[in-house]
This record gives sequence, structure tokens and C-alpha cells, in this order.
Amino acid sequence: MANAPVQRMSNLMAKTLRDDPADAEVLSHKLLVRAGYVRRTAAGIWSWLPLGKKVLANVERIVREEMDAIGAQEVLLPALLPREPYDATGRWDEYGQELFRLKDRKGGDYLLGPTHEEIFTLLVKDQASSYKDLPVILYQIQHKYRDEARPRAGILRGREFLMKDSYSFDLDDEGLARSYALHREAYQRVFERLGLDYRICAATAGAMGGSRSEEFLAPAGAGEDTFADCPNCDFAANTEAISYELRPVDGSAVPAAEDIPTPDTPTIETLAASLGVPASATLKNLLVKVDGEIVGVGVPGDREVDLDKVEAHFAPAVVEMVTEADFAARPDLVRGYVGPQGQEKLRYVADPRVAPGTAWITGANKPDTHARNVVAGRDFEVDAYVDVVVVQEGDPCPRCGTGLTLDRAIEIGHIFQLGRKYADALKLDVLGQQGKPVRVTMGSYGIGVSRAVAALAEQTADDKGLVWPKEVAPADVHVVAAGKALQTELALDVSEKLRAAGLRVLVDDRAGVSPGVKFTDAELIGVPHILVAGRRSAEGVLELKDRRTGEREELTVDEAIARLAA
Amino acid sequence: MANAPVQRMSNLMAKTLRDDPADAEVLSHKLLVRAGYVRRTAAGIWSWLPLGKKVLANVERIVREEMDAIGAQEVLLPALLPREPYDATGRWDEYGQELFRLKDRKGGDYLLGPTHEEIFTLLVKDQASSYKDLPVILYQIQHKYRDEARPRAGILRGREFLMKDSYSFDLDDEGLARSYALHREAYQRVFERLGLDYRICAATAGAMGGSRSEEFLAPAGAGEDTFADCPNCDFAANTEAISYELRPVDGSAVPAAEDIPTPDTPTIETLAASLGVPASATLKNLLVKVDGEIVGVGVPGDREVDLDKVEAHFAPAVVEMVTEADFAARPDLVRGYVGPQGQEKLRYVADPRVAPGTAWITGANKPDTHARNVVAGRDFEVDAYVDVVVVQEGDPCPRCGTGLTLDRAIEIGHIFQLGRKYADALKLDVLGQQGKPVRVTMGSYGIGVSRAVAALAEQTADDKGLVWPKEVAPADVHVVAAGKALQTELALDVSEKLRAAGLRVLVDDRAGVSPGVKFTDAELIGVPHILVAGRRSAEGVLELKDRRTGEREELTVDEAIARLAA
Repeated sequence: MANAPVQRMSNLMAKTLRDDPADAEVLSHKLLVRAGYVRRTAAGIWSWLPLGKKVLANVERIVREEMDAIGAQEVLLPALLPREPYDATGRWDEYGQELFRLKDRKGGDYLLGPTHEEIFTLLVKDQASSYKDLPVILYQIQHKYRDEARPRAGILRGREFLMKDSYSFDLDDEGLARSYALHREAYQRVFERLGLDYRICAATAGAMGGSRSEEFLAPAGAGEDTFADCPNCDFAANTEAISYELRPVDGSAVPAAEDIPTPDTPTIETLAASLGVPASATLKNLLVKVDGEIVGVGVPGDREVDLDKVEAHFAPAVVEMVTEADFAARPDLVRGYVGPQGQEKLRYVADPRVAPGTAWITGANKPDTHARNVVAGRDFEVDAYVDVVVVQEGDPCPRCGTGLTLDRAIEIGHIFQLGRKYADALKLDVLGQQGKPVRVTMGSYGIGVSRAVAALAEQTADDKGLVWPKEVAPADVHVVAAGKALQTELALDVSEKLRAAGLRVLVDDRAGVSPGVKFTDAELIGVPHILVAGRRSAEGVLELKDRRTGEREELTVDEAIARLAA
Repeated sequence: MANAPVQRMSNLMAKTLRDDPADAEVLSHKLLVRAGYVRRTAAGIWSWLPLGKKVLANVERIVREEMDAIGAQEVLLPALLPREPYDATGRWDEYGQELFRLKDRKGGDYLLGPTHEEIFTLLVKDQASSYKDLPVILYQIQHKYRDEARPRAGILRGREFLMKDSYSFDLDDEGLARSYALHREAYQRVFERLGLDYRICAATAGAMGGSRSEEFLAPAGAGEDTFADCPNCDFAANTEAISYELRPVDGSAVPAAEDIPTPDTPTIETLAASLGVPASATLKNLLVKVDGEIVGVGVPGDREVDLDKVEAHFAPAVVEMVTEADFAARPDLVRGYVGPQGQEKLRYVADPRVAPGTAWITGANKPDTHARNVVAGRDFEVDAYVDVVVVQEGDPCPRCGTGLTLDRAIEIGHIFQLGRKYADALKLDVLGQQGKPVRVTMGSYGIGVSRAVAALAEQTADDKGLVWPKEVAPADVHVVAAGKALQTELALDVSEKLRAAGLRVLVDDRAGVSPGVKFTDAELIGVPHILVAGRRSAEGVLELKDRRTGEREELTVDEAIARLAA
């Protein structure tokens, strides 16, 4: 393949901006727009300009090479998909408002693919008939669609985004474990080559179903995920995936429950202060409506309820907050003084910290009154124990008990052992070695290709702009003509020589733009090497600057080419 | 980049089929499905299997290289697009049922992009402010969506398809002509490299608007376009684009019109036979409803009306056929005996062959009666002359008058000089050299990337299967292990050596599959070179077969590698 032509900035469709876009909250959004890599077309829908497209293509190439290296086969499935397979697995409904649905001219139902488990399962059902056809790993790099409620953070969370999704098909659990391990290793190589700092964290499986699941999280302040890291052992997990073990205690010595008058204690804080106990000694009862039924959620008074976890537990039922009208209809529920004891009509779930035998101060179901020595399992029943509290800094590591640290991160990859959920729904069998049908077991694996670009921008940028790692940079070298005709001539000449040496070259040959503006733009755009034709151009001497370290040195044309081509 | 790994057929997700798919009508559809390149996911919506994806990627690469070579810049715009820009140009409505429309969770209107003129225009409006920023050519390779009424012919006419679309932005007509010429040359290089036989034909502009427009047509029986070729001069055109010059004649000597009784002449044929005149002497009047109004369309009796041309003329008005009820409501229109004379309430358009001064036999607007010596311009007025007849073999060449030949073809590329239609609608100006705003002029250019794969299959296949040209083939060589362990070992060994020499290798290492089946599959799959490890494997001798010519020769391993790597 021919070397790419030198890209001249005089002709480049990538206008840099001095100011952050008004709607930008996170660093990658600000910088990718300001440096002319992307532009917003609609909420959560982005256009990739020439420099952005080059970076995206580099990420794609790295992902493709590493997927090919584990023997995965690339295919390309449609984004516009028929409803029927998603009905068969229930996801047409389960996806709720996140799914883009549409009708064709004949009234047929279609969707824009959010992920492709169904279609891959049907493809393998069509293609594979015998155990000899397995194992197989198929992948594609393709646009996905999710109608996010709050598209935000630029390309970090778009409604149309580029993803590598792959699917493994195996005969048994050992095969699935092998396919999973292959992906885990390939993902490590991908993220290392991309130059991303990342952690592999245990994850919940979300809407996918299945068993083992890990996320690749790139620590970044702009991230929407929070992960917990143990400073002592190698435990790391998305906080959503951390569960607290249920440890029943002996509550037989606790005195009988008794009411205590507690006027003027509308909050946990005022209650704890007035009684002189820590908030953790109180039981907080949140009321929610689950498909219209009021349900109590009990957690220690010092903990916050994670509503996402509550929703995940009750899904696909819809969880809503209770309203004035709900309280009016249920006089047995005394607002601010609800307790689970003596509430036979109230379905009640609780955090594992509210284990059988633990004693609590909680509402007495009477105005201005609480009850103490209310023991779980004695004075009230818990219908289900569910991890619903927000994990906090210092919570014990589930593996070794050390206090956890918490950090924000961007999910850049996700690997799942799906098992037979989709194969069951779509009846994917192959003829086994014994001549009997064998139900296939599957894995599902994703890398956010466009999101990885944003994650890289987040992690590598400095106060001057973007700083791309070599393999993903839109060019190898950014040549700057810092002056008039002489400098421009030298810049264009050295650019052609660099291109001939196999380098990808961006050259700032703009007329009427000051050297200062060109330097600022070069820092903002973030190509690894900046080569300046400036004051000593007449002598054929250039200045080479390392974008990341800021180191500079003066070199002749030949030295510069030799150095950069090395 | 590392050489691609050897692809083993024992593991390849590409099941070959002995029989044509039941719904397949055209050769490329049959062969691409049978050889395991593509599978249907829904009507007009296709999945690309590993071999198909490789061919598609090769076509993409060639298109990309040639676009880069003319200085075009690659971008990537969304497929999911907001309604507003398409409202501004009127295309939200004009596209009619062909546009996939959908709503997001907030009720906002979106569409799946059929082409991207609007979004590119807005992108350049955002990016370019001065004449110095132009000219510029932007392109993308991306999925397009059109809700075809009759998706057919496999990937030749899909509802989701891969397209390279590019757009040029210039200050003046000369610039546009240059950008157009650059595309014309780049397209010639692309189609030559692809190994396609094609013609450049004058074309109508369809829904795009604008002036100069040419199509790149690949002759193939499965094509949906018909093009006319002049055997004498270099004229070639889509028949839709051929217009007949209006040549008024002197009709002053024609006697006055008179009625003639014509019982039992329900058709042009029976009328002409009963009067002893050629069908071309009669005037046929078709009635259509245009947005509810009945309109007459007059053509010589020996010509067919091309309804697409009628629709194109009246667009965006909707054209329908008249019904019994319409005749019942208009007793002045006598079914089977309509003539344009004395019809003051009837809007009337006619083919240029019905030129002023020409005399006709036509309906007398009375049952069982026709009129003769009915002269255009004397006895009736034509509201508009429109080319509405189907072009026939032997029609005169518009350039030299020689009888034209007609052939079916596939449209693989299309280039348009759009002019200022979109720039006007979306107010795209840049500051000109004189300090005043200049309205930008645009071109729009497309290559059907997925369609080119089908066109290639149509043109190059033989009775045994597909025959890919070298640059687009899914592999350079297809190694066949025609035997047991010895042959398989040799086949795998030579495959690795070929890979090491830089070749892309597909090896048929399937156990339990007969050599005959493997040979048949290799012919069907159509890789240019087939290298067979067969009877003389013990001596290290292989047979190399040229898929296209069928030529065979025996070679040692080293000779085979040297030959293929050359």
C-alpha cells in the first residue's frame, strides 16, 4: 500500500477553537472538539472529522489485529435489525426506552442494534451443524445504537457509537472458559498497545444475563463508573458488583423491642444525635413502588441506597418513588416513622448488613415515635436480602477485609460468559460427538472503539491539549512552518522526505497564521513529534520537540529524518 | 502490519450450499449465498460472513486509496440523523416512503441517512469561513439506508448498504468542474483496479437536483438500469436520461379533423389494423392522477410510457393511475376514446414526438369513434413536452442519429454537479477574496461499495462459481488438502510458507470431506489460485490451478511459492 499523502493544514477540515464548547463538561469532550477531531451533529450523535477519523481507524486496526491473532473471524452484521429475534429473547421489551425502534413502509417492526447476541446466535445456527464446526469466535466493528436518557460527555456516552463486539460459541463450559481467557488476553494486548491505563474489575452482568463477567476500566475523572481497589490484595471491582456477605448474629440476648418518644427527629442525623447513638445503629427504610406495589428497602442509617441496584434487582418491573398520593392511600405507613416490624402488608427487602439477629432503632409506625431493640428475623421478616447500598471508601475488601479505595473510571471493555441464555431462547444446538444435539454455550465481548478514543484523550491530555500515544496518533510528526516562504519551503520539503521514509505527516503550511498560533495548535492537536522550521531554516536546521515531555533539540534535515524514522 | 493468519476452512464460518437459495433470482445473489459470502438477515438486509467481509474490505481499501490520492479527506458522519436539515432542503418530505424515519425517547424526529448532502453542507458551514478554506473534498465510507419498495437481487439492491459518498465544495463553476473531473478520473481508476467492465453514461439527476451528472454502469443481465450505446459515435446514456428533440413540422396542409366510426377497436393494435395504418400514426392518451387531478399523457401509439419518467416529471406531486370511480366522475372522458382535442378541462403533457404540426388519429371523445387529421397546436394544445416514452432498441442516437443498442447494467457509481441547491437551502457562504460572502457550489459523488461486490460477482462468475480479480479476492491462494494426513500436513506446511512470503492464504484442511467436494467448493469460492496437495504429495509436488483459465501445472513446494509470490 502506498504511503498516505502528506496532509496539509492549509486544506485540512479541522478548525481549532480557542474556547471550550459551551455544553462540554469533561476534558475529552472539550479537547476533541477544540482540536477539530469531532463535531456534534445531534444530542449524543457525533461526526468524526479527518484527524478524528484517523485516530478512530488506528484504534480499529489495533483491535482487528488482536482479534485476528486469537483466531476470531471478522464479519459484518446489519445495524437495522428485525424485531422477531429480539422478541424471542425478550429484549425487544426489556431494553425499554433505550432501544431505537422503527417501522418500515410495510409496518414491519425493526430496531437499531444495541448489541447483536440474537443475530450472531442465528447466524451460527444457520452455519454450524456439528461439533466439528465449533469452537468459533466471530466479531465485527460496527455502529451500535442506544437511546440514552442523558447523552453526555461527548463521545464517551453517545447514542450512536462504534463498538467491536464478538461472540464465542463452544460445546461446554471448559470451551467457554478458554474463549473467555483468549478474549481477556487479547483485550490486555489491545489496551496496552493503545497506551491506556486500565484495571480488570469484576462486574455485574447487567441486561446480558449469564455468569462470569469482567470490565476493563480506564481510571479517569470523567468516568461514569466507580470501581473499588484493594490496597492490600489484588481485588478490584466495579462498585456495582461488590456484594456484602450475609452474616447472621445471635440476637437472643437483645431485650424486647420498645417504643421511644422521639419528637423533632425528622432525619437520621437528628435522631442519632438526640439518642446519642451512631447513625449506623439506626435502620433506614426507603419506600419505593415496584410495578405499583409499595415495597420497603432497609439499610443501615449511615448508608445511601443505590437506586440503580434496586432497579436492577426488580427488573424488568418498573421502580418508582412513592408520592404524596401513595402515602394518603396507605395510612398504615406513617411518613418519617416507618418500621418493618408489624407490617404484614409490606414487602420488605434489606441490605445484608441487616442480617438475622441484628438489632436496630427504627420507626415505630406512629408519629414522633421510634422503636429500639428491633431484631431482624425476630421482630420483622426480610423477604429478600439484596445488595442495595452505595459502596463507600473504606468499606471492607470482600477478599481480605482491608478498607477499599474508590476511583472513577471509563468502561472501555467488557467480557461476559453468557452461558446458554441466548442459545436456549433461539434453540442453538449442534450435533455432538455422541450423535445427540448439544446446546451451545456462548460468550459476549465488547470494546468501545469510539469510547476508547475519548478515554485516551482523558488519560493522556495535559494543560496544553491532547497527547496521543504513537500507535493511535493521527500522524507521526507535525511539521510547523514557523515563518514565511523560506520556512514553508523547508517544511514542505522535509514533509515529503519524511513521507518517503514511511512516516505519516501533518504539515502546518497555513499562510497568514502566526508561528505562535501554529505552536498552540500543534500542542492542542497532540501529534507525538513536532518538527519546527523556524529561525535556522536557512541553515537547514530544524527544532524537534517531544509533545509529551516537552524536550527539544536542534537537528539537520537528515538527522531529523533519521531520528523520526528510527 | 503483521501478515494475516492462514484461514483454515475447518474453522471458517462459511458454509457452502449445493443449491441456489429459493428466493434468489440473479447470479450474484445465488453465488454469494452458495459460496458462503453473505446471508440474508431480513428483506434487503444482509450479513457479511468472513469471506464476504474480506472482499468488502478490499473494495473499501481501493476506494479509500484512490480518494486519498485526489486529496479527499476521510470523515465519518452519523447514520442516525436529525430531521431539521432535511426539512430545510425539503428532502424529509420528498423522499417519501423510501426514508426510514424514527423517533427518539423524547419524541424528536430522526432519519437513517439515505445520502448526506445536508450534513456535509452543515459541516463545511461550521468549518470553513474563508475562500482560503476551499476547495475541499470530503468523503466517508458508511452505511446508507433506503426503504426500497421491492428489495431484490440480494446485495444489488439492499435497504442497508455500504457506500462511499463524497462531496466537493468550490467557490465557482470552474472549481466545481475540476472537482468533478478529479472524481471522474478517480472513479475510473477504482473500477479499473476492481476489474469491473463499465461505461460512463449521461444520467438524470433524480432526487438530487443539479446539472451535470454521469453514471458508471457495469453491464450485467441482473442490472436494473438500461443504458443505450451508440455503435457509431461515443454516445452512451442511461435510457432515463435520453431526450428526444422537439422538432415542429408544418401541419398547415393537413385537412380538417374529422370523426370516423371505429367499432370493435378497443386497442391500438385493433385500431391500426382496422384502418390499415401503422400504430405510429395513432396518438395514445394515458390518463393519470397527479395529486388528485386527472392529467392526459400523449405518446405515439407504438411507444410505451415510462411511468418512472412521468413520476419524475411531476415530483414531488404523487402520480396514481385513474380508477373506475374517476371515470364515473368525469363523463367527458370516454374510456378508450379519449382525445386531447376539445378537452379544455384536461391538463395535457406529451412526448416531443407529438410536436406542433404533427397529425394524428386519436379518440374522438365519443364511444366507438376516433378522429383523424388531429393536429398538435391546431386542434389541441400541449401544456408541456416531456420525455416519457420508453427508449427502444434502434431509436436514433441523439448525437449522430445511428440506431442505438440497449443493454442492462448495474449502477456502480454516480457523479453529480449539484451546484448551489444545498448551499442555498442551508446558506453556505464563505468570505470571498473581495471581502464579500460567496455562495459555495457543490458536487456529490457516490460509489456503491457493497453493490460493487455484487457487480463483480455478476461480471466475473462462470458456470462453476465466483472468479475474483486479484485485488479483491478474499485470499491470494486456496490450498486444498486432497487426501488424508500426508496431504493435510503438506497443505498446512505450504500454507504457512506462503503466508510467510506475504500471501493471504485459505486452506481447506477439513477432515472427512472428499477431495471432490473440496475442489467444487474451491471453484465456487473463486480465489484466483488453487494449490492442490494431492497424489504426489509424498514427493512434495503440488498442482497449481488458475481459477479463471483452468490451466494447471505441477510444481514443487519451492516452485509454487516462488510462482505465487511473484
